[in-house]
Amino acid sequence: MLRRLAELSRQESLRLLGSAPFGRIVYTIRALPAIVPVRHLVDDGMVVVRTHVGADCAGAVVAFQADDIDPVGESGWSVTVTGVARRVVDAEETERYESVLEPFVDMPNVEVIRIYPEIVAGYELVSTT
Amino acid sequence: MLRRLAELSRQESLRLLGSAPFGRIVYTIRALPAIVPVRHLVDDGMVVVRTHVGADCAGAVVAFQADDIDPVGESGWSVTVTGVARRVVDAEETERYESVLEPFVDMPNVEVIRIYPEIVAGYELVSTT
Repeated sequence: MLRRLAELSRQESLRLLGSAPFGRIVYTIRALPAIVPVRHLVDDGMVVVRTHVGADCAGAVVAFQADDIDPVGESGWSVTVTGVARRVVDAEETERYESVLEPFVDMPNVEVIRIYPEIVAGYELVSTT
Repeated sequence: MLRRLAELSRQESLRLLGSAPFGRIVYTIRALPAIVPVRHLVDDGMVVVRTHVGADCAGAVVAFQADDIDPVGESGWSVTVTGVARRVVDAEETERYESVLEPFVDMPNVEVIRIYPEIVAGYELVSTT
């Protein structure tokens, strides 16, 4: 089975990202690449996550990725957004996000982080045979 | 539902990683974080992938991650290995890996890359309620 990658539009990429049950935040810690699964939502074109790695992410350029690829690898998609991660500090906004976004883990240092997607890269696996 | 992260042993982490149908290679391109789904296998404690992003990875410290988390997020695991990515150049080895590892996409520049896991971090979501 031959497959190629078909590029998705920004709009379609963000739609798929918003449909995923969770994603992964990609950042740098002590100059090493790091990646952690997190819950997210897409709100007004921005990615919002609740995570305990906010201290390592806030103010930095991070990537956020989600995918849905069938185990056999015959079809699926992967979307990555890249941009600056910022803490959500407004009390009303924080409360709103916390009410709809449950973090994976119950830890005291879970924060609400918003990623401004400067770059959106989405690909679909397309069969060519 | 409250959950915590339970640390997994290196051995268990590599076993789970080997059981995943695919994973994600995390690297840096033009100083920005990047992540691409790839097929992999765990061979003799090392992660082997076939990918078209080898030119951006070979010789660099990368992370390789796989996870299996149920959509509701009540259980699951995530394993990340970090280490130097190297091209597999030995013809016999390359042939052996190519025979068992089909890349997601059919592109002329797909290479076999081996990651030496210097750091192995594996976590399991454990319910605490």
